[in-house]
Amino acid sequence: MWSTEDNQMMSLAIELAQKGLYTTRPNPCVGSVIVKDSVIVGEGYHIRAGGPHAEVYALNMAGNDAKGATAYVTLEPCSHYGRTPPCAKALIEAGVSRVVVAVTDPNPQVSGRGIAMLQDAGIQVDVGLLTDAAKQVNLGFLKRMQQGLPWVTVKLAASLDGKTALSNGESKWITGPEARRDVQRIRARHCALITGVETVLADNPSLNVRHSELGSLSNEIAPAEVHQPLRVILDSQARLDAELAIFSVTSPVLLVSTRDYPESVKSAWPAHVSHQVLPATDNRVELQALLTLLGKTCNSVLVEAGATLAGAFVASHCVDEIILYQAMKILGAGGRDLLALPDFEKMSEIPNIDVIDERKVGKDTRLTLRMSN
Amino acid sequence: MWSTEDNQMMSLAIELAQKGLYTTRPNPCVGSVIVKDSVIVGEGYHIRAGGPHAEVYALNMAGNDAKGATAYVTLEPCSHYGRTPPCAKALIEAGVSRVVVAVTDPNPQVSGRGIAMLQDAGIQVDVGLLTDAAKQVNLGFLKRMQQGLPWVTVKLAASLDGKTALSNGESKWITGPEARRDVQRIRARHCALITGVETVLADNPSLNVRHSELGSLSNEIAPAEVHQPLRVILDSQARLDAELAIFSVTSPVLLVSTRDYPESVKSAWPAHVSHQVLPATDNRVELQALLTLLGKTCNSVLVEAGATLAGAFVASHCVDEIILYQAMKILGAGGRDLLALPDFEKMSEIPNIDVIDERKVGKDTRLTLRMSN
Repeated sequence: MWSTEDNQMMSLAIELAQKGLYTTRPNPCVGSVIVKDSVIVGEGYHIRAGGPHAEVYALNMAGNDAKGATAYVTLEPCSHYGRTPPCAKALIEAGVSRVVVAVTDPNPQVSGRGIAMLQDAGIQVDVGLLTDAAKQVNLGFLKRMQQGLPWVTVKLAASLDGKTALSNGESKWITGPEARRDVQRIRARHCALITGVETVLADNPSLNVRHSELGSLSNEIAPAEVHQPLRVILDSQARLDAELAIFSVTSPVLLVSTRDYPESVKSAWPAHVSHQVLPATDNRVELQALLTLLGKTCNSVLVEAGATLAGAFVASHCVDEIILYQAMKILGAGGRDLLALPDFEKMSEIPNIDVIDERKVGKDTRLTLRMSN
Repeated sequence: MWSTEDNQMMSLAIELAQKGLYTTRPNPCVGSVIVKDSVIVGEGYHIRAGGPHAEVYALNMAGNDAKGATAYVTLEPCSHYGRTPPCAKALIEAGVSRVVVAVTDPNPQVSGRGIAMLQDAGIQVDVGLLTDAAKQVNLGFLKRMQQGLPWVTVKLAASLDGKTALSNGESKWITGPEARRDVQRIRARHCALITGVETVLADNPSLNVRHSELGSLSNEIAPAEVHQPLRVILDSQARLDAELAIFSVTSPVLLVSTRDYPESVKSAWPAHVSHQVLPATDNRVELQALLTLLGKTCNSVLVEAGATLAGAFVASHCVDEIILYQAMKILGAGGRDLLALPDFEKMSEIPNIDVIDERKVGKDTRLTLRMSN
């Protein structure tokens, strides 16, 4: 059914979509390629929320050449008037004769409408080319649209013997500078970062994206344009005060606790700090409630926490992916452990993980593990 | 100084030498290639102790073509009458005109004599081609000749979070069948295996090489010909009895303790079991004394032990290499730790390791770590 050209062009559209990984949120990443007589006459990708959709960039580049052309889009063209007019309408008006779609719109309220609008206008629409590959670019957006929950990634860093620090807490540095820079890019792709009060009190981190360490992103996106992720701190017993580094950086902070803070504490918080009380389980913030809250606005969240909180996420089966930076070091059994999990009785009870990517980052190894919950 | 042909031929000789890795001990692995007018007229390698040396195989293949040829040998030809006549003499009698040597004999009592014998006969001898690569094949032999100590490798297997078993000891299986087969080949290359009484009591292992799992070794060597390594068990408090699986396999066992066993226990041991009392440190067998003892006969020893004994070897700075099989699993902080090391205060105190090899073995990763002690 699909020609070699179809496959090549959709692959290119997916590559274009990926360029938006740092900036489109909460929108999805979308790429589009317009081809006429086997020549690419237009291409584009969604750069940022509020800006034009991928199809608009591609159609603008194609101009009159769009007439009778095939448009490849990684996600079903929108059919509604939002911040921009519907892309399906733009494709119809430009006179394309065929549209190829990788993934249909995951929003059940509008899914299929863009395709129908195109078909009603007499355009041939072929759906399902490179669907799996195209989905990988929008895992967070797709999960949020379908389940109301963000894609959850846990970031970990440890030695070969699974230790995150010496027994006295010393951990500077387990991983090398390349891995620490890589973490900046991983952070920059996420809508929110989640950490625990213990980490904040122990390390006093800013937990922001250092734009200077992002390196080159794409021709259209300057690193400084990348929005800071929402910083979420789980402080179940409301112990934090306003003196910490995390408050001095002015991007948004969300404090989550199971009881309210005293007014005297709250009044000292700067304007970019907000607070939410959530239900407790065993005196800790209920993670499902937290993710439901964050799922309203966040496609993806990155958990950067100690063994207890990171382990609680994994044990509660709400983690989709683990990114593990492994340093070629041995710290010994006295070091601090990576993940607190329940005591398993049998090997069949351990978490189900698949390695989907493994690569060197400087001298360290970065493993991407997909969880089957 | 060295031509491309020199490099190619010595590389081939090193490859040939490696074929003896499973069978030459306590002799070194040696390969030889004889080249006349750029044509290989003879090649061979030392297959097993007591059998012909590499040069003899190569000269036999070359026959009259050896006259005026160049002989490449990975180790200096021997000059003494042992179980076979000296290879230097054989090379002289065959009429070779040039001998290229990668590594000189490490035995200070004979080093250089083979070369001198050749030179005295008017043969051009060039020494030092691909020396480092050739040394890698005989790390154990070289260390034993120079220091009187065996090359010490610690074999470890753990999950991504550095655990060797669940909290209840369950560990079947952390690693996959390919890794466990690979361990059989690693064992088969070693003169001795070292384990601790705790491992023997907990797992009741046979700790032998299962020939059926070795796979294909070389055209000349059937897996069943591979000798069983000496099985060394550290039983400092003389707790073992004769009922264990390790005694029912009839290859040699050496029990090492810091006090003697009762006569009633010793009399029950089968003939393949021997015993040695060694000095103690903190009620444990002094590892340096153990290695000095084993260094009399063993080029290389493989430590397959629990976190305490394996950690003691690493902490005592007598380990040359760690082979770590890493399973793509997560067991959680409650699992058993990999290596007990002293509590370090600073990151600068942790062991110094270099990754010299990293590869997939089935679904597991095998890391070879070289220690700088």
